Amino acid sequence: MRELFCPSSVVVIGVSERRENLGKEIAGNFLEFGFTGILHFMGLEGGCIFGRKIHLSLDEIDEPIDLAVILTPAKTVPGLVEECGKKGIRRVVIESGGFGEYGESGLKLGEELVNIAKQYDIRFIGPNCIGIINFVNGLSTPFTTLKDVFRRGGVGIIAQSGGVALSLLNMFDNEQLGFSKFAAIGNKLNIDENDVLEYYLEDPDTSVICLYLESIRDGRRLTQIARRSEKPIVVHKSNIGTKSHVIAQSHTQALANDDMVVEAALSQAGVVRFRDMAGYLDFVKILQLPSMNGRNLAIVSRSGGHAVIAADAAHLYGFDLPPFSRDFLEEVRRHLRADVIRLANPLDLGDLFDFEVYVRIIEHTLQQDTVDGILFLHTYFAAIEGESSRHLLKAVAELAGRYDKPVALCVATESFEMSRLHKEFDFPIFMAPERAVQALDRSIQYHRRRAFLRDHPDGDQPLPAAQAESIRDILQESTGRKRPPLLHECLEVIRLAGLNVPDYSVVQADYEIIQRTEGIREPHAIKVVADGISHKSDTGGVVLGLNDRDAVRHGCREMFKRLSELEVSGVHGILVQKMVPRVPGSLEFIVGGKRDPYFGPMVLLGHGGVFVEILAKTSLRMAPVLPDEVEEMIEELPGSEIFRGVRGRPPIDREALKKSVLNIANLMVKFPEIDQIDVNPVIVSSRGAYAVDARIFLRNPGDAV
Amino acid sequence: MRELFCPSSVVVIGVSERRENLGKEIAGNFLEFGFTGILHFMGLEGGCIFGRKIHLSLDEIDEPIDLAVILTPAKTVPGLVEECGKKGIRRVVIESGGFGEYGESGLKLGEELVNIAKQYDIRFIGPNCIGIINFVNGLSTPFTTLKDVFRRGGVGIIAQSGGVALSLLNMFDNEQLGFSKFAAIGNKLNIDENDVLEYYLEDPDTSVICLYLESIRDGRRLTQIARRSEKPIVVHKSNIGTKSHVIAQSHTQALANDDMVVEAALSQAGVVRFRDMAGYLDFVKILQLPSMNGRNLAIVSRSGGHAVIAADAAHLYGFDLPPFSRDFLEEVRRHLRADVIRLANPLDLGDLFDFEVYVRIIEHTLQQDTVDGILFLHTYFAAIEGESSRHLLKAVAELAGRYDKPVALCVATESFEMSRLHKEFDFPIFMAPERAVQALDRSIQYHRRRAFLRDHPDGDQPLPAAQAESIRDILQESTGRKRPPLLHECLEVIRLAGLNVPDYSVVQADYEIIQRTEGIREPHAIKVVADGISHKSDTGGVVLGLNDRDAVRHGCREMFKRLSELEVSGVHGILVQKMVPRVPGSLEFIVGGKRDPYFGPMVLLGHGGVFVEILAKTSLRMAPVLPDEVEEMIEELPGSEIFRGVRGRPPIDREALKKSVLNIANLMVKFPEIDQIDVNPVIVSSRGAYAVDARIFLRNPGDAV
Repeated sequence: MRELFCPSSVVVIGVSERRENLGKEIAGNFLEFGFTGILHFMGLEGGCIFGRKIHLSLDEIDEPIDLAVILTPAKTVPGLVEECGKKGIRRVVIESGGFGEYGESGLKLGEELVNIAKQYDIRFIGPNCIGIINFVNGLSTPFTTLKDVFRRGGVGIIAQSGGVALSLLNMFDNEQLGFSKFAAIGNKLNIDENDVLEYYLEDPDTSVICLYLESIRDGRRLTQIARRSEKPIVVHKSNIGTKSHVIAQSHTQALANDDMVVEAALSQAGVVRFRDMAGYLDFVKILQLPSMNGRNLAIVSRSGGHAVIAADAAHLYGFDLPPFSRDFLEEVRRHLRADVIRLANPLDLGDLFDFEVYVRIIEHTLQQDTVDGILFLHTYFAAIEGESSRHLLKAVAELAGRYDKPVALCVATESFEMSRLHKEFDFPIFMAPERAVQALDRSIQYHRRRAFLRDHPDGDQPLPAAQAESIRDILQESTGRKRPPLLHECLEVIRLAGLNVPDYSVVQADYEIIQRTEGIREPHAIKVVADGISHKSDTGGVVLGLNDRDAVRHGCREMFKRLSELEVSGVHGILVQKMVPRVPGSLEFIVGGKRDPYFGPMVLLGHGGVFVEILAKTSLRMAPVLPDEVEEMIEELPGSEIFRGVRGRPPIDREALKKSVLNIANLMVKFPEIDQIDVNPVIVSSRGAYAVDARIFLRNPGDAV
Repeated sequence: MRELFCPSSVVVIGVSERRENLGKEIAGNFLEFGFTGILHFMGLEGGCIFGRKIHLSLDEIDEPIDLAVILTPAKTVPGLVEECGKKGIRRVVIESGGFGEYGESGLKLGEELVNIAKQYDIRFIGPNCIGIINFVNGLSTPFTTLKDVFRRGGVGIIAQSGGVALSLLNMFDNEQLGFSKFAAIGNKLNIDENDVLEYYLEDPDTSVICLYLESIRDGRRLTQIARRSEKPIVVHKSNIGTKSHVIAQSHTQALANDDMVVEAALSQAGVVRFRDMAGYLDFVKILQLPSMNGRNLAIVSRSGGHAVIAADAAHLYGFDLPPFSRDFLEEVRRHLRADVIRLANPLDLGDLFDFEVYVRIIEHTLQQDTVDGILFLHTYFAAIEGESSRHLLKAVAELAGRYDKPVALCVATESFEMSRLHKEFDFPIFMAPERAVQALDRSIQYHRRRAFLRDHPDGDQPLPAAQAESIRDILQESTGRKRPPLLHECLEVIRLAGLNVPDYSVVQADYEIIQRTEGIREPHAIKVVADGISHKSDTGGVVLGLNDRDAVRHGCREMFKRLSELEVSGVHGILVQKMVPRVPGSLEFIVGGKRDPYFGPMVLLGHGGVFVEILAKTSLRMAPVLPDEVEEMIEELPGSEIFRGVRGRPPIDREALKKSVLNIANLMVKFPEIDQIDVNPVIVSSRGAYAVDARIFLRNPGDAV
């Protein structure tokens, strides 16, 4: 990747003298950004620009070239890349559109590109992109005219859209943020976000990595890279609704991801994900401040009304507003001109007009041990108080650095004054208290997750060899017969994986019925075992609550009779299963696993039974999971407070439920041939968790990961 | 109210020559805003300012005065108001702080104020406020120094906080909005938001009313005024969390409202309510555009990435993106320079560089019948394309007016360019697609609600006189005995109100047990009827599923025995009630009523049984409700899709459920003595709704409405 961003010599291919030629704009940007290497031009019509010859072919250039930038019609690109290969160029930026994003013919062209690159060991970025900028050496490939007005700094950008990438430049620049590297990766047929991300992690100029993605092809790798990153990774992942899929595909050949999977997997890997730009920007801004070590927030406001609004925001995001100490308040009171404001947190400075006193109050507040950070709200008319306010804000910013605690500044003033502050002022300024508080909240979550990942590098757990072998035998049997595992096989697999399954046996002939039911004294259920019958209760293939031996025997015979009358095919027998004793306060859950094409094995937990229908919300994680992560999953379910026991209801056996989830996750990790598992219901009471029913689907041999 | 905003002569009380005197600032603002009436000053120290004498008392002023503005220490204010009364002044603005917001002594001073005002027939605004501005006649009472840089326009402001009011001025002015009137009402001891609101509704200069409130004292009146308003009313109601209550009280003596009640009641009355400033501002901006008549949105974007982000937002807020007609797309294609972009909605103009063509495309799009509005996303660097972009935006704005459809402009550019646009440009510009789309969504909801309110002025329904009288008798009996109605009384009340209650009778003696249970052949429940036993199932006072006569008899006897052994006092008997036959797919609901101290009778609907515990979300409305509103309530419940029947489950009897809600609402309206009703569960199947259990609590005689 370094070779891509730091070439000694570059050729821009597709340059002409014509007014509307975009290759010329690329060349212009190299000059505008002061590229420190050698620049060559090539174009079919020859001529010269910027005092330099436009070569007719690469052969004309008699020097080694590290990087080619191509912007020519799509159909010419494969040939040109081949020429590059022959010339020994190993890095290419392909900006031309008209590939997979355009349709069938473009898809073919794309495949051709990929093959040629493989043949010549070329790594390329694009096609259908504006390429890269290295703010250190002035490499700048976009074909849109740019002015190099940008600060240098630690922000590294990776974006699937050139337009969004440029507006990120604009947006961050408006907020005093500076840049290190920029990559607009378009259709990412060769180099993708993961490649650039890995490079940014090592790049000493980059300290925070900002991504905009419309699709994630190798989510598993993305999360693996992210897990070990000490640099914050912030992602705006769009293309979440069906309405976006068509445009995203015709924009960057982007295929839709399952957004619940994206959300779960990225958050698990410590990536801070947004669905909108405002929160994204606020978060990158807050990263400039020291991190907040706890949830104790002090609100200091020039106006009481803004203090109320800020307290609402603190409430919404779960911050504590610790009371100030009496000494502190006495100190503040001594500075107040009139004695008409009650001192509390939030602190309303409405009656104070001397900004020097504000600064002293902020400093005193920062000194308090009970305060982890400050939200300071200032409001003014620049026409009246511009100068003194700017002075105040600078002093407050300086204090924040000195005491190593965040001060989120929230300013309301005229639009022109605001942009002046943004240009002159080297400290983040927030537009609204709720946005500042949200950013503080996300940053606390981020730092907590990073600390967790530092301590827990991997959630993988062993599975005893004997069990693993038995499971493999069952799955191979099903694969061999080209059918999903049967009901009793599913139950056996999850039992071997460590779940608690009530005793069962399968009966086929009448003598088996008699033999196997002999000792039955408790309620049992019977369920048909047959190919392709999955929703058993819909088809009368389940009878519950058969209370004794005779009832079970009668039930089995009736069921066989019914199956035979209905001419149900593929019947393998009837499963006779002991019912889970009804314990008061027991709840039903669904525990499942699925294999996401981009993120691999996932595990999910949800309310079972009729709750599943009512509450779509389930909790999802990439497998393997750690016990603490399963704890989070349980807490995420709506109404999780009742799991701890409320109103005489005993608490559920959390450890047993956790174990079930961990085991299903482990099963998904250890057996890539499993596509999906549903264990539904898992009945959890205060005395354990029982997996009562299960379905397993295997992957077709040709499926992707 | 008109006398307050349009006085011919004003006296400012509390003026002195001293540098830090705030009364002088008030006087200065009158001059700055060019007040068109006569201005007098009064202050204990005399002297003169602005070329005019500071009178020592009102007696010195020999002319009639319409309005007094007072800013003196709190303890002097009652006396001064009395002087005003004697002088014949009937309107006062009291800006001094130190009243109820400050503590016990301040509360007393406030009461004194209220009494003196009543005695002299004075209406006053405040105390603890910055008062009012009339942008038409230059009346301007704030004590903070202002510059009159503001546009005149249709925005009328009412705010409980001076600081927030001023930042609203700032915020709206930044967005090219102009003002008519401004009122910062502080502790609102006499004039409150409702009084000002009523005035603004009649004020020809005001076309949209923007409120900021920390408390709502007479919510019922607010909603009544709002229901008849053809002018949009937008409210930022803060003070929603426990952390805000203390500061709000010490800020403007504001008491907390139940935020769920506020949310439900305001929305029902067609008031557009926000909890944050960003959405609030966006909504006021979108009101400047023509209203959108449907949900068909066209997205036109300069960049594909922004089109994807916008499509996400459209998805989130439930907009349709209708496909464009073939003719239209052919037309657009003819203008495209290269043929590499797939034409669709969203329309990605990424390959087009001629802004004139953009304008033509927007015009064509507006002409489409299938398009109700446009979201246009433009992104540019002002350094390169400033002039041409401003030209483009103006042309697009002009088109929007011509075709009477909204075009929400969303622009990404440099901060300085953005403030230039805001200053020069007379058309709303949005910062992010999701914010523009959210504003469009809220405006559609607003206009739909307005249309509904126009057609449905009142939801009140009659209650037959005989039933009403019987209900009143039962309630009076309870009131007389100073206890809540007993179980069978509660059931009788809701039965008389029109709910379907399964047959029941109350037995006390053994002969009654025998007599009343004689014909029983179906399952019955028995429940103890006793004072103060409300959670019957917790105390063993309920037995369900007694299948025949003998079981019921045995159950009753056992229960009496148990009650006697446990020495339960206040037992009135046992209620024997037929159980609702279990119909597959039946669901439990809770229907309730409560009396909010600020908004009056409310009705609520929620999932019953264990669902209540899991799903806190209930649906709430002010009573009376209309059948269509109850329909909305049902739809608001999580998982409402299953009410229509899914996966073999029959649909529930919606009409029966609706009737239950309507009748409970009606009960709350007709019987102000009822404080709270809980009917739980109401069992609803495909064959009707049965109210099985009910509790009623009556108000204490002294309670407020």
